[in-house]
Amino acid sequence: MSGPLVYHRGPEFPDLLTGVVEDAKRLFPTQDELFLLSSSGTGAMEASVVNTLSPGDRVIVAQAGSFGARWKDICAAYDIDVISVDAEWGQTIDPARIEAILQDDATISAVLTTQSETSTGVVHDIEGIGRAVSAHKALLIVDGVSSVCAHPLDTNAYGVDVAMTGSQKGLGLPPGLAVITFSENARKASETARCPKFYLDISKYRDAFAKGRGPATLPVTLISGMRAALDLVHEEGIEQVWSRHARHAQAVREAIWSIGLECFADSPGNVLTAVSLPESIDGLELMTKLRQSYGIVIGGGLAHLRGRIIRISNLGFVTDDDIRFIVKALEETLSWMGLKFDRGSAIGSAEKVLST
Amino acid sequence: MSGPLVYHRGPEFPDLLTGVVEDAKRLFPTQDELFLLSSSGTGAMEASVVNTLSPGDRVIVAQAGSFGARWKDICAAYDIDVISVDAEWGQTIDPARIEAILQDDATISAVLTTQSETSTGVVHDIEGIGRAVSAHKALLIVDGVSSVCAHPLDTNAYGVDVAMTGSQKGLGLPPGLAVITFSENARKASETARCPKFYLDISKYRDAFAKGRGPATLPVTLISGMRAALDLVHEEGIEQVWSRHARHAQAVREAIWSIGLECFADSPGNVLTAVSLPESIDGLELMTKLRQSYGIVIGGGLAHLRGRIIRISNLGFVTDDDIRFIVKALEETLSWMGLKFDRGSAIGSAEKVLST
Repeated sequence: MSGPLVYHRGPEFPDLLTGVVEDAKRLFPTQDELFLLSSSGTGAMEASVVNTLSPGDRVIVAQAGSFGARWKDICAAYDIDVISVDAEWGQTIDPARIEAILQDDATISAVLTTQSETSTGVVHDIEGIGRAVSAHKALLIVDGVSSVCAHPLDTNAYGVDVAMTGSQKGLGLPPGLAVITFSENARKASETARCPKFYLDISKYRDAFAKGRGPATLPVTLISGMRAALDLVHEEGIEQVWSRHARHAQAVREAIWSIGLECFADSPGNVLTAVSLPESIDGLELMTKLRQSYGIVIGGGLAHLRGRIIRISNLGFVTDDDIRFIVKALEETLSWMGLKFDRGSAIGSAEKVLST
Repeated sequence: MSGPLVYHRGPEFPDLLTGVVEDAKRLFPTQDELFLLSSSGTGAMEASVVNTLSPGDRVIVAQAGSFGARWKDICAAYDIDVISVDAEWGQTIDPARIEAILQDDATISAVLTTQSETSTGVVHDIEGIGRAVSAHKALLIVDGVSSVCAHPLDTNAYGVDVAMTGSQKGLGLPPGLAVITFSENARKASETARCPKFYLDISKYRDAFAKGRGPATLPVTLISGMRAALDLVHEEGIEQVWSRHARHAQAVREAIWSIGLECFADSPGNVLTAVSLPESIDGLELMTKLRQSYGIVIGGGLAHLRGRIIRISNLGFVTDDDIRFIVKALEETLSWMGLKFDRGSAIGSAEKVLST
């Protein structure tokens, strides 16, 4: 990304763009068409809605957290009628609830949900939701912004029609570049979708990408960065990247459990671990201490969970030693804050996972 | 931009964001509110429309080139009724034509135009257009994507209600960050504008920026880059940046005229110089030769002008020696391609301007 800028109308750009598009498909993996947008992940979420749906359409939003709830806000902005399948924060969505609604109402155009709910650490069962949706005409649209690289989001096997991710998540790049995929059914839907759009109009991307360029200026340094990140991922192997995320998340969970704490999520994913804190521990103080004493940045609780949970990420190009360092810092800091447990148990429990 | 990433939810980010926003206002200059978007300039153009207008509104699009015409496409996407004030490519818009329409039709909500039309090298008279619009209720929305830093776009003095630029233009940054300003009248219009929107909804930016963050993830490396670019601009002084662009564009024009060629624009701006080529010179061959022999990238003609004009930019952090180099390369290449002129005249004419 620090090299000379590739001119986005110059002769080298089409090969760069086409290569990144093809290799990015291996992250999900998907054989669907894939586009890069100059936007955050939220822009790609909106693109999935405005390119497949029309005002007045009915959809199911299946959600249990602040990122899942964003689907409702986007649909509301476009007068799309939402049937909510809500679960408590920290819980997973039961695919049977979605199927029951689809059985009753054949007019539903799409099911919108989230693979990794970053506000709670839950991973939703996209494969199960895909099976629930498969017998119905509804499209399945999945926010994979934080999950891609940590969990398979096998769009073709799961029956996902539109999926998206962002550069600053599993690929470890700076933010500013979003990735979106469209299945053949989603592509067909995009031909009749009547939500107004211009910048996020995927038909413009389809035409321009076929010629190796963007419909407007693309963020070329981030695309060069994605070339390098994809090379790192494919050198390690995407299956190994998934299993590394699984192993690191497991190490953090074992550490947490060993000192008597609980995961907030009923089905914790491999992107991050949300930890429920006892009354005696203030999450904001813990975060500040980790930042000031160790230079470690973790997430706090959003909305009503502020101060009540912490969220420890292992997403991106994280090493075993990074996990050892955060577990050690957490053990020291919680002990310093007065939590009682056998010192060394968190480090030892994490090490058991890391050393296997 | 190559330094450690500033965490966009961390304690350092609000100061970075707020400082960049305040200093970016000095580029126009403007006292209006200013926001940064994770998008190309086109995204900011769309944001100006969807945040100030409603479906069914009538607007004037005053345009004379491919970027000006984009306003029509954006308005069409949102069912906004467009009255076209078109000039031939290479010509400027006469503000009197806009005023005549505004006199006749009090229902017009906005006038949309372009300061620097990059496809032709024309700079439109925004001050004059501002005077034409000033007696009417219509908002004035100006695409300053390529012009900011090369020409003043004094929104408050000219009566511009919404203006925008992109990171990859006068600021010399990579693409991916757009800047947009809203006057008090534009802010009021944004409270009632009914175009559907979510990602580009400026009310979300207004709320989030007040707290020193973005409504969704902002491209933090580009914001760090903008911090550095603004420091460079303000160290030189924005007036000096404008006069440098004027001097460089003048040097290129004098060079062109000295060898018997003409500018394509009737009112050439200081962003780039579009040069009409004689029949004997193929623009695409000239571009290839400059690229291969000198490593110089220039623009060609768009649409019907393909091969018939070249476009030489002096936008961004360009030095006098950069101008000397392109003029020398152009003189050598045109001579090699068979154009007859007194050798040395282009270099000499440019030098007269550069050395004063």
